Amino acid sequence: MEKKTNVLLYGLGAIGSFYAFIMARAKPVRLSVVARSNYDAVKKNGVKITSMNHGTHHFAPFQVLKTPAEAGEKFDFVVLANKAIDVTSVPERIAPVVEEGKTTIVLIQNGVGNEDPFRKAYPNNVILSCVTWVGAVQHSPGVVEHKASEHTHIGIFPGPQVDAALEKAKLKEFTDIWQEGGTPFTIQDNIQIQRWEKVVWNVAWNALTTLTMLDTHSWLSSSDRSTPMTKTLMQEVISVGRAAGVPLEDSLTDSLIERILAMPTIGSSMQVDCKRGRVMEVDIILGTPVRKGKELGIPTPTLDVLYTLLLAVNSRMQ
Amino acid sequence: MEKKTNVLLYGLGAIGSFYAFIMARAKPVRLSVVARSNYDAVKKNGVKITSMNHGTHHFAPFQVLKTPAEAGEKFDFVVLANKAIDVTSVPERIAPVVEEGKTTIVLIQNGVGNEDPFRKAYPNNVILSCVTWVGAVQHSPGVVEHKASEHTHIGIFPGPQVDAALEKAKLKEFTDIWQEGGTPFTIQDNIQIQRWEKVVWNVAWNALTTLTMLDTHSWLSSSDRSTPMTKTLMQEVISVGRAAGVPLEDSLTDSLIERILAMPTIGSSMQVDCKRGRVMEVDIILGTPVRKGKELGIPTPTLDVLYTLLLAVNSRMQ
Repeated sequence: MEKKTNVLLYGLGAIGSFYAFIMARAKPVRLSVVARSNYDAVKKNGVKITSMNHGTHHFAPFQVLKTPAEAGEKFDFVVLANKAIDVTSVPERIAPVVEEGKTTIVLIQNGVGNEDPFRKAYPNNVILSCVTWVGAVQHSPGVVEHKASEHTHIGIFPGPQVDAALEKAKLKEFTDIWQEGGTPFTIQDNIQIQRWEKVVWNVAWNALTTLTMLDTHSWLSSSDRSTPMTKTLMQEVISVGRAAGVPLEDSLTDSLIERILAMPTIGSSMQVDCKRGRVMEVDIILGTPVRKGKELGIPTPTLDVLYTLLLAVNSRMQ
Repeated sequence: MEKKTNVLLYGLGAIGSFYAFIMARAKPVRLSVVARSNYDAVKKNGVKITSMNHGTHHFAPFQVLKTPAEAGEKFDFVVLANKAIDVTSVPERIAPVVEEGKTTIVLIQNGVGNEDPFRKAYPNNVILSCVTWVGAVQHSPGVVEHKASEHTHIGIFPGPQVDAALEKAKLKEFTDIWQEGGTPFTIQDNIQIQRWEKVVWNVAWNALTTLTMLDTHSWLSSSDRSTPMTKTLMQEVISVGRAAGVPLEDSLTDSLIERILAMPTIGSSMQVDCKRGRVMEVDIILGTPVRKGKELGIPTPTLDVLYTLLLAVNSRMQ
């Protein structure tokens, strides 16, 4: 009998649930999940997912845990799909399930620089980094709706102390799971380009829809200043990314605006968090490029204002 | 029998009601008011005002009107305490009650540049310009609470075609009414200094409390970025005002922060409007310094962002 790949998914929100669904139906996987707010519901009833692409499914992970430590074992893959709020404490929290040099850590989160605390804590482990364009929402604990949007970029976060051949092998092993699970993905040589592109996207739509409580299209047509301001904001983030060594094109501002206008109008995950009074991913999405810009001497006046306002809005949630 | 001074007050919101109260109890005044949303209530029951400084009073104006035209007569003073939303149409709307060269127009509104459309429409009339530090709120139609804050700056908006002696005489005649009504005021040689100072104040507290839905003190302590950002914003407005020829001190940023911290924490009129889904004074408060800055070549990056966001929030109200 084939030994199953032992996977732990940490963070069972809407996006985490989507990837849990994909991995749970890949036959060579034994999937455990760490859930927080929806622990009771998922433990009892599993996850129900309705997807425009995949139909309606119900699945129960092999085990549902409250903490990684509870698992009492090491895993082949630890996949992090948690909200990027308290990014520095997670490497420590997953320590009980990470075997040095063996366990592969996979990040599926918004933001840039998310890999750094994991690299620091696990210098000898393979780290894979993903950018998700999956749209999903959790309507009630364990009940998730996946919208049509579905694509993932994945690549290696190279470790100076890690064998490059091992990194490649782990990337293949992991993407084989997604292949089996049936979700489209693209392997990227430099995943940081996609991470930064997603940050440019996230900075703009999250910040602007949250501070105005408008959806994307209404924001863009709210005055003749809104589109130019959106481009200025995106350009600031692009300039920071480029100064940080990531080759980003200036034309990205136009293509991201075209892209949003070609989609049905949307709010954003930050807007949803704000409406529900939940802590928002302000620091990872806006704070990182602000700090990086300051470090590299790139002025970010528009981003700075939005970041400061959102820190203040976030202070209402704490 | 002494002939009474014939005064029309246009705009019977919280601030308008306060000044109506002051003028209604000045014995030599016959006060008419133009009311809109609270017309029925005030017509029937008059205005009830509760004031920490003046006690509780009830008064009925000589007449309550829906429009200036309805008065069918000219006035000695037309006092504008309306919300500065549709500033360009008001000069025309008061035309039926303004006698050329005779009627004095008194502006009690937020913003800078408010006098210009009136000067253009009435080149031969005296214009007085006021800056109010009165705090008041209308709890229900015709029911107003005046907080302890009470002071008004008043000065002449000099007209090139108007006799300076007449301007002085009208200023005296009008402030005699306030004297009689019992509210403190200061006559200013250059009222534009106070108007700009109030705009610096209003830009900051209105914009920041509205976009964050925090009160002033919570905003200032929300992160270590909020106070510096507030000062940057204030400094931008100060620079524009100074370029426009109004002698403003840089130290104003510090004194306005000290002033707000010495007060009980407050929201702002714009925040109240936003919560109630009402159109906000975005254009007069933020738009004027933005346009003036652009015209004079003074960069206002922080103000620009807040203005654009608030235009978007305002678009929800229309």
